Amino acid sequence: MAHLRVINPNTAGAMTVVIGGAARAVAAPSTVVTAVNPDMGPESIESHYDEALAVPGLLTEIAAGERDGADGYVIACFGDPGLDAARELASGPVVGIAQAAMHAAMLVGRGFSVVTTLPRTTGRAWDLARRYGFGEACRGVHACDIPVLALDDPASGAREAVAALCAEAVAADGADSVVLGCAGMAPFAAEIAVRVGVPVVEGVAAATKLVEALVGLGLRTSTREEYAPPGPKRYTGLLSGFTVPTEGTLAVHSP
Amino acid sequence: MAHLRVINPNTAGAMTVVIGGAARAVAAPSTVVTAVNPDMGPESIESHYDEALAVPGLLTEIAAGERDGADGYVIACFGDPGLDAARELASGPVVGIAQAAMHAAMLVGRGFSVVTTLPRTTGRAWDLARRYGFGEACRGVHACDIPVLALDDPASGAREAVAALCAEAVAADGADSVVLGCAGMAPFAAEIAVRVGVPVVEGVAAATKLVEALVGLGLRTSTREEYAPPGPKRYTGLLSGFTVPTEGTLAVHSP
Amino acid sequence: MAHLRVINPNTAGAMTVVIGGAARAVAAPSTVVTAVNPDMGPESIESHYDEALAVPGLLTEIAAGERDGADGYVIACFGDPGLDAARELASGPVVGIAQAAMHAAMLVGRGFSVVTTLPRTTGRAWDLARRYGFGEACRGVHACDIPVLALDDPASGAREAVAALCAEAVAADGADSVVLGCAGMAPFAAEIAVRVGVPVVEGVAAATKLVEALVGLGLRTSTREEYAPPGPKRYTGLLSGFTVPTEGTLAVHSP
Amino acid sequence: MAHLRVINPNTAGAMTVVIGGAARAVAAPSTVVTAVNPDMGPESIESHYDEALAVPGLLTEIAAGERDGADGYVIACFGDPGLDAARELASGPVVGIAQAAMHAAMLVGRGFSVVTTLPRTTGRAWDLARRYGFGEACRGVHACDIPVLALDDPASGAREAVAALCAEAVAADGADSVVLGCAGMAPFAAEIAVRVGVPVVEGVAAATKLVEALVGLGLRTSTREEYAPPGPKRYTGLLSGFTVPTEGTLAVHSP
Amino acid sequence: MAHLRVINPNTAGAMTVVIGGAARAVAAPSTVVTAVNPDMGPESIESHYDEALAVPGLLTEIAAGERDGADGYVIACFGDPGLDAARELASGPVVGIAQAAMHAAMLVGRGFSVVTTLPRTTGRAWDLARRYGFGEACRGVHACDIPVLALDDPASGAREAVAALCAEAVAADGADSVVLGCAGMAPFAAEIAVRVGVPVVEGVAAATKLVEALVGLGLRTSTREEYAPPGPKRYTGLLSGFTVPTEGTLAVHSP
Amino acid sequence: MAHLRVINPNTAGAMTVVIGGAARAVAAPSTVVTAVNPDMGPESIESHYDEALAVPGLLTEIAAGERDGADGYVIACFGDPGLDAARELASGPVVGIAQAAMHAAMLVGRGFSVVTTLPRTTGRAWDLARRYGFGEACRGVHACDIPVLALDDPASGAREAVAALCAEAVAADGADSVVLGCAGMAPFAAEIAVRVGVPVVEGVAAATKLVEALVGLGLRTSTREEYAPPGPKRYTGLLSGFTVPTEGTLAVHSP
Repeated sequence: MAHLRVINPNTAGAMTVVIGGAARAVAAPSTVVTAVNPDMGPESIESHYDEALAVPGLLTEIAAGERDGADGYVIACFGDPGLDAARELASGPVVGIAQAAMHAAMLVGRGFSVVTTLPRTTGRAWDLARRYGFGEACRGVHACDIPVLALDDPASGAREAVAALCAEAVAADGADSVVLGCAGMAPFAAEIAVRVGVPVVEGVAAATKLVEALVGLGLRTSTREEYAPPGPKRYTGLLSGFTVPTEGTLAVHSP
Repeated sequence: MAHLRVINPNTAGAMTVVIGGAARAVAAPSTVVTAVNPDMGPESIESHYDEALAVPGLLTEIAAGERDGADGYVIACFGDPGLDAARELASGPVVGIAQAAMHAAMLVGRGFSVVTTLPRTTGRAWDLARRYGFGEACRGVHACDIPVLALDDPASGAREAVAALCAEAVAADGADSVVLGCAGMAPFAAEIAVRVGVPVVEGVAAATKLVEALVGLGLRTSTREEYAPPGPKRYTGLLSGFTVPTEGTLAVHSP
Repeated sequence: MAHLRVINPNTAGAMTVVIGGAARAVAAPSTVVTAVNPDMGPESIESHYDEALAVPGLLTEIAAGERDGADGYVIACFGDPGLDAARELASGPVVGIAQAAMHAAMLVGRGFSVVTTLPRTTGRAWDLARRYGFGEACRGVHACDIPVLALDDPASGAREAVAALCAEAVAADGADSVVLGCAGMAPFAAEIAVRVGVPVVEGVAAATKLVEALVGLGLRTSTREEYAPPGPKRYTGLLSGFTVPTEGTLAVHSP
Repeated sequence: MAHLRVINPNTAGAMTVVIGGAARAVAAPSTVVTAVNPDMGPESIESHYDEALAVPGLLTEIAAGERDGADGYVIACFGDPGLDAARELASGPVVGIAQAAMHAAMLVGRGFSVVTTLPRTTGRAWDLARRYGFGEACRGVHACDIPVLALDDPASGAREAVAALCAEAVAADGADSVVLGCAGMAPFAAEIAVRVGVPVVEGVAAATKLVEALVGLGLRTSTREEYAPPGPKRYTGLLSGFTVPTEGTLAVHSP
Repeated sequence: MAHLRVINPNTAGAMTVVIGGAARAVAAPSTVVTAVNPDMGPESIESHYDEALAVPGLLTEIAAGERDGADGYVIACFGDPGLDAARELASGPVVGIAQAAMHAAMLVGRGFSVVTTLPRTTGRAWDLARRYGFGEACRGVHACDIPVLALDDPASGAREAVAALCAEAVAADGADSVVLGCAGMAPFAAEIAVRVGVPVVEGVAAATKLVEALVGLGLRTSTREEYAPPGPKRYTGLLSGFTVPTEGTLAVHSP
Repeated sequence: MAHLRVINPNTAGAMTVVIGGAARAVAAPSTVVTAVNPDMGPESIESHYDEALAVPGLLTEIAAGERDGADGYVIACFGDPGLDAARELASGPVVGIAQAAMHAAMLVGRGFSVVTTLPRTTGRAWDLARRYGFGEACRGVHACDIPVLALDDPASGAREAVAALCAEAVAADGADSVVLGCAGMAPFAAEIAVRVGVPVVEGVAAATKLVEALVGLGLRTSTREEYAPPGPKRYTGLLSGFTVPTEGTLAVHSP
């Protein structure tokens, strides 16, 4: 039985519910999914500023997962915020949803289009594609210009707008799959796949299955050098709760 | 319940047994693993010539899997022979073990060393790493100079030689994981991981879990253009059995 | 005097005649061109499946060439099927027509557009461009959506369609040459070059001259590791004729 | 007259003094350098965890700089933490010291070696080199295995160890310059340059001059899409002080 | 006090005046700018032929600068002609204006469009972008099709044409800054920046500030191997004046 | 019958004799090889400075070839000096010997080592490899530290030193061919190939055959934009002889 902690790094609880649902919809019967969000940080993540400030809260959730015996983690925001830091804290594997969606897309096709929310986030999507090795396979990143928290508001027309943009993107890019660029788009995936006629990869589901796979393989993040647990260090001020008191003893928690 | 067809593309039945074991060791309880090998082609794959001639047999096994209702496929040879052609035939996902092992290594670390059998196969490993997007993450490809079929012969000293080479490779390459470069090395993975102290990724297991994950996500190879089923076409001579009689009706079989 | 074996890897004899003509039109007076096609495999190559199944027949023709004392080989299909395996068998150089055309284009300009047949083959063209080092120089791959065997049918309108697409491609891509993406387009090259006003490189002719050049330089495929002749190995079933009986003694033949 | 805010993102005040000195040593007479560090976060930055948790404090210092009318900013930690987020907040240019040092090295040579502190940070240095376009020009990243805060302790032997490693790195890498990989190495640069005989680039000084140059050119971070100021958003919990109340009115401050 | 020699490598004195003005407009009060052009070579640089033949004259100006005690050099033509050779001759740093503009653009944004003069020069701009590491960051190169010497002729409509093309380029390329691709466009930069709403980087100004920065940092071109001063060598014929008589004694001069 | 002009761009007549011999040794019976060198410029090319100053003389030889009806050109210096400019002047194809050798090596193997003369020239070899698309295939560039003009002096021990370095390079780089990095090494190629056991590609011979091939294919440098003949332009001073008087009328000559 695997315990997966699926972390929505923003503070919007309604979105955490959506994310938890997306994860549980694909998880194996033997997998326990715990969907959480921190109680500190931004209510949605739509800029580098938001992303940076979502990381402390994310790390408290990783630390909480360690205390609770989590076997693996999903970072359920398409910018994969704090992935490297989370890997240092977690004893089990950690996968971001952009990472997972791009990996999955590469296993079922040759090149993908990313369809995301705000235009200002497209640079981050490209950075991640290149970081993961998919700079050539990522054929285009397209923004529908709808804020994250409006995605689940029927009045926003998001479902239709995202579907239409997916169809346009595939044609314009010569892609053969679509990667949805926001956890909030999870509920749209199945419908869009039918409409566009190509695999549509939604990251929360993809990450859930990939972490399950890694846990099943007994694979964890390498601790050779870079991702070894951080050594003891004093943190001060507002962040004093993040102090690492002793080697191998994580004490990170939300003060 | 998922039916996975794990295809050893060479004709060495003993190796198929090893491969089937490696797949079943990690498969979910609800997954049925069918491990097979074709009855045509080379007894091991150690050259481009062998690899090319393993593909017709592999394709007969894909076609057989389609007739049997397989949900997904593993190509259990580290050169990932015939992957593109297999994707055209199969209705479910197809993953090669080099592909799977490299993807998994990228999810648990930053850069991997490949340890393989004969020096003449290192070029193919590099080609695959680049094809999959991991040309930079692949830090080195190292050959132990032991033929494929000698790997399971205790007299070959393969277990020790491969383990020693893995340790050397990680240090020389500054890698933080190891990818084992032959299906025949599957039984060595756990022991080497302990010895070297980094994740050691074995492709048969990795591919089994990744295909399970894709099946669980409802993802199949895109049929937009490149990987659409091949159209009707006449094949002649020795290969006349590979004729595609009508659109959408696969008739490939070993004559 | 150089003996060149120009191999059409599909079984369409009419196309072999066209290919032989294209090769002889540029060959030196002292070069003997033998244009052949195998008697096994697909009648045209339009998918990865076709390509994979064209390779055994191609290899029988390489082996036949070795018995006949061929000095060099051209693989006359734009997917360059079986190039790596052929290099292992042949004592003289082997050049594929995609490879040759791209190399030649790079010697007379800065960037080329590829104009090919079916949309499903564009992925392969990109793979080859990247494999040969020309991923940046290849500015675009465009498909005219005419099947290979229809190219020489006046009713298909292929000549006009290909010419028009070449002109569009150069303008859209900012290319300064065109690479024709199918051996069957060889007869169109001269006319299109005049019409579009840039060098139009046809692979059969280009490969013929490049193999002549290599033979004239006394260069053969390196036998250091990767492309050394395959060692002895037993092949079974339908492909038992491909058994390599002893080191250095090629016995490949169509059974 | 330009006001430069040089931000040490860790909380070690002694290091801030060193950094301020390095900046003032090269600043133009008309430049006012304000060297600061936040009062929240880690006392040194030696892991992804540290780096992520240094960013909130860094951002408070950017916001403070905006209130104080700073014309430009230096992020004085070699991981360039929070650079993208800082660019969103700052009206003037922001340059990280890894970025600056690599850019400067590229203006005086062909390829550089990076010499840094702990082995676990080399991955981040490679990420930055690739992000900035210098993945090929970065010839190697070498760690002296001395913690950041020990650099200015004569008992650590850091000065000698770093100098020796610079000499070895240049020879091993075939580099023609050295980039020092930690702000704490600033006092060593001149001496090492003499000893090794190649340009040794220290990032605090380099960033100071590059920001001066950008200010002199009237160039600021582009606000087209990605780096536009973040929109209004509620932050909660420990980080509620980071709330952006209204468009264009930055209210970030350490609560 | 820094002496900067800003070299217009063509023989058009009016353009040298413009270039000198652009450099002085941004130079520090303590910087002395000497703007010169050689008396040999082409009157403008619009082809590889022109560029190659501008280099001897450029080198005479570098040598003259060395005799005059110049601290650094700007090569004020967007092709950065002779940069590598100039670095060998000069004891201080040498920066080309394409190089400077691209570096500066990378410090204030994520990706730039280049707007240049004649279509035939776009290949060179791409070559330089790739050489400097910005092959991905360079989002497009656009030519206004106005000859260099017509840029300052009001009748050419250049100011308007260049501004309009900059706006189009940014939108088409998804760039967030513009690099002006000719020294003759220097007077247009400020106006275009206002009109397009993104940073517009003009290379003469950028190079002036970057050379000032390098001089302020005490950095000079590395003399390890590649850019060491050329050894003694006899030059004959028309170019006999370029003979290097003895190690370390530069005697290059216009005969 | 093809007229090939093989241009040694330095002024060392003895080297021109060697180069002419290497070209004639492989040229077809119907090819007339004219080996020349300019009477202006450096006596050998061993720096960027030398290379830049070899180009005017090279261009006079291209212009002379145009007057004499040359069908194609070889630039017989491994830095391929002036290649782009020469392409603009010449109506037939122009190939540099580094370019030719690298292309030929790619046709007979997977990766090559370059063995060249002085360490200061290795940067140029890497630049060319990347420019031609072979940045990954070039496995290493090694310098024997023997000046160009000493290569044919038996007392220099060059023959032995170069051969030994080729053997070391192949082993260290895992290459399967060698590219000789100086025209002066042409006489060593055959002997080294036997000794090292891999293809050894010498650029003068390779370029001769490639230009013959291009001429035989009727291919010339594209005149679309970049390589179109340079337009009329006034050249002054020492270089006034390079003036282009009218469109399409080349008047370049050594004054």
